[in-house]
Amino acid sequence: VSQPCAWVVTIGDELMRGEIVDSNKSFFSERLLRLDIETVRHVTVGDDPDAMAEVLREAAARARIVLVSGGLGPTRDDLTTEVVARTFGRGIYRDEAVLERMQAYFRSLGREMTPNNAKQAEFPEGAEILPNPLGTAPGFLLQVEQGPRPAQRAGGERSQGSLIFCTPGVPRELYRMVDEEILPRIEARLARPGIVRAALLRTFGLGESVLDSELADLARDNDAVTLGFRTQFPDNLVRVVARGSDRAQAERELRRVVDVIRARLGPLVVGEGERGLEEIVGELLLERKHTVAVAESCTGGLLASRLTDLPGSSGYLLEAAVVYSNQAKQRVLGVEPAVLDAHGAVSEPVVRQMAEGMRRKSGADFALATTGIAGPGGGSDDKPVGTLWVALASAERTQARRYQLMRDRARNKLLASQIGLEWLRRTLLGLELPDETFPRQRGVPR
Amino acid sequence: VSQPCAWVVTIGDELMRGEIVDSNKSFFSERLLRLDIETVRHVTVGDDPDAMAEVLREAAARARIVLVSGGLGPTRDDLTTEVVARTFGRGIYRDEAVLERMQAYFRSLGREMTPNNAKQAEFPEGAEILPNPLGTAPGFLLQVEQGPRPAQRAGGERSQGSLIFCTPGVPRELYRMVDEEILPRIEARLARPGIVRAALLRTFGLGESVLDSELADLARDNDAVTLGFRTQFPDNLVRVVARGSDRAQAERELRRVVDVIRARLGPLVVGEGERGLEEIVGELLLERKHTVAVAESCTGGLLASRLTDLPGSSGYLLEAAVVYSNQAKQRVLGVEPAVLDAHGAVSEPVVRQMAEGMRRKSGADFALATTGIAGPGGGSDDKPVGTLWVALASAERTQARRYQLMRDRARNKLLASQIGLEWLRRTLLGLELPDETFPRQRGVPR
Repeated sequence: VSQPCAWVVTIGDELMRGEIVDSNKSFFSERLLRLDIETVRHVTVGDDPDAMAEVLREAAARARIVLVSGGLGPTRDDLTTEVVARTFGRGIYRDEAVLERMQAYFRSLGREMTPNNAKQAEFPEGAEILPNPLGTAPGFLLQVEQGPRPAQRAGGERSQGSLIFCTPGVPRELYRMVDEEILPRIEARLARPGIVRAALLRTFGLGESVLDSELADLARDNDAVTLGFRTQFPDNLVRVVARGSDRAQAERELRRVVDVIRARLGPLVVGEGERGLEEIVGELLLERKHTVAVAESCTGGLLASRLTDLPGSSGYLLEAAVVYSNQAKQRVLGVEPAVLDAHGAVSEPVVRQMAEGMRRKSGADFALATTGIAGPGGGSDDKPVGTLWVALASAERTQARRYQLMRDRARNKLLASQIGLEWLRRTLLGLELPDETFPRQRGVPR
Repeated sequence: VSQPCAWVVTIGDELMRGEIVDSNKSFFSERLLRLDIETVRHVTVGDDPDAMAEVLREAAARARIVLVSGGLGPTRDDLTTEVVARTFGRGIYRDEAVLERMQAYFRSLGREMTPNNAKQAEFPEGAEILPNPLGTAPGFLLQVEQGPRPAQRAGGERSQGSLIFCTPGVPRELYRMVDEEILPRIEARLARPGIVRAALLRTFGLGESVLDSELADLARDNDAVTLGFRTQFPDNLVRVVARGSDRAQAERELRRVVDVIRARLGPLVVGEGERGLEEIVGELLLERKHTVAVAESCTGGLLASRLTDLPGSSGYLLEAAVVYSNQAKQRVLGVEPAVLDAHGAVSEPVVRQMAEGMRRKSGADFALATTGIAGPGGGSDDKPVGTLWVALASAERTQARRYQLMRDRARNKLLASQIGLEWLRRTLLGLELPDETFPRQRGVPR
């Protein structure tokens, strides 16, 4: 039994001019995969009503699910509502409730709504409105009769016609609308709901191809399981999709595979779901009521910035210092001039004194320090570009370790901040700190 | 006279599963725009020969230029050569020179070439081979007769048929092949080469729609000029494309329009090109040999992190402190407890003392301070979420100003750091600081 397939249509002159990379498409496809729905075509057209109509007609004739993004804004160029209505023979109506909410929103900002915004309260007749809590343009769902021809309909599909979901092009508005409004509606209307369960495992410390070869056997001989891999530098994500004849069976299969992966990878799995390492660590700190302070050289403030991305971070981050110069290391953190002279700023004694100095001064439970050579300049034979020292001071002890990174400056900074966060995560969970071969490009020790 | 248009076709199952974002498309379109060629459709399909054939047939019937990427590798899934040949009625031949180069390449790596690699030396009959200095799979150009129907052919086009360029999917191989092999061939075969010049202006402080309405007249009555707008939060970018009967005329027209835009927007244009505000400010600091220190509350380290994104930033950033707690504000920066009690941490007297304390302690020429309520919690009637105080202390004076932001936490942090960088830029250039209505959503004062 095959599942219905999807087309993804994105609209916008800016996409056609190559000014931005269209990440909405990959988001849509990845989310549909969670419901075991395959996307068979991505099409992008500019803000051109004829091209839009042609693609929409083709999409509805070929796919049961059509996800459209873009063209719902207030400007003259935003034509999606109008073109969808005309293409599928519908009139247009104005939704007064939506209009009122929009006016209230503008009032709350102390501004007057301009007349062109009223356009965003218009919908094709028969459309179901999809709320947009993050912006002014709601989305909508239009069920159209055209639908895939019988030959292209998948087995087990009862209802006819296609579901056309129109969403704003702004990624954060779109992402929330897909998760809260669109996926539940697709799941509810499909012939075979609840037989697919999916999980997302976030790993840090292994290359994508290594991860693939370590885990590929789990899906190779098992039709009930699909694995997908995606890089979100410096993390690698594993999507696990499990199928079953009912929800409970799919869920059991999913948990079984997730447990095998966790057993194989151990602490390299840093979390489940979309939350990044800064959120995972922030929540652990809040939960355990621990405080932290940071002394940064090569990460230049990025560690502190990531630790303050979570609301409520004032509950755990007491203080951070970015100390690039040797004078600042001495004055702010009490690093001894003799130690700086003898070992240089990128050295174990210095990173230890940075962490200990910051802990003493801030009174935090943990103090984390980084020093290194982010590049592209400043390297030597002894301390090449990519050299990184990390230290963590706690009441019991101070640990320090050297890593060798080897990327460009921007990625070295990000990777160094990620290693720092990973030190905190492992310390809070009582796990061993990653050794100096981290992050590993090949092979998991078994 | 309109130019011929292009379709971009990308091929690969991994693209359809949403595991990676397809950046090749935006690269193709952006490069074509430099030749004033508009891309009118992007299509992506999986490694499915029927879907590929259908899209290729459609593309050749509709566009003069078809850029295809993906499916040229050595595996069973790589079907582009075979499908292109079959779709356009060509046989397949093996190019012995290409095969030999490939064998030599593998020998130079000390490896034996596997038989499946020989597939990469096969091409549709009549194809012109496009060398790939960075990988094993060459590309090819096939000129096909099908071409756009006369009604869809642009004026001034002499030759008939379509140019189908097939390239590898690996971005760095593709990028080089486009610049070195494909664009020169397109330019040579088009009616009007070398007559387009383009510039990119980076603006900060105006909404996209305001920017559009402030500048739209420049292109409206002038066929020689096209403007494109793009948001790269919190900046808005204006792409200016100018045409002329020769390169010099196009260049003159471009400079004329850029000058008009700069005159209209004044300091809201922060730079030209892809460089972000952190790079613009970092280069100004290096150039003028000024030093800076930062005291951050609501920006949480992001200002320091952005200021250290540029190599050589140790030449201007002396020190930064992230002081979330009142105790840290007192201990690290010398903010007076009585002032904190009387006015609260988010207030003018406190932000001034933060900046002055940091300047005193660091010895920097300029010290920048931020304090505010990033949200989502912590707001009050007096100081709602989004309240931001910025101060800049120099040898001459300390200036402070309040702004009202109103976005989510992540964007408030980014916007606050951007306003801080903009204070530095304007101070270094001797410009007025942005007033409290900044960033402005509508209307430029004239």
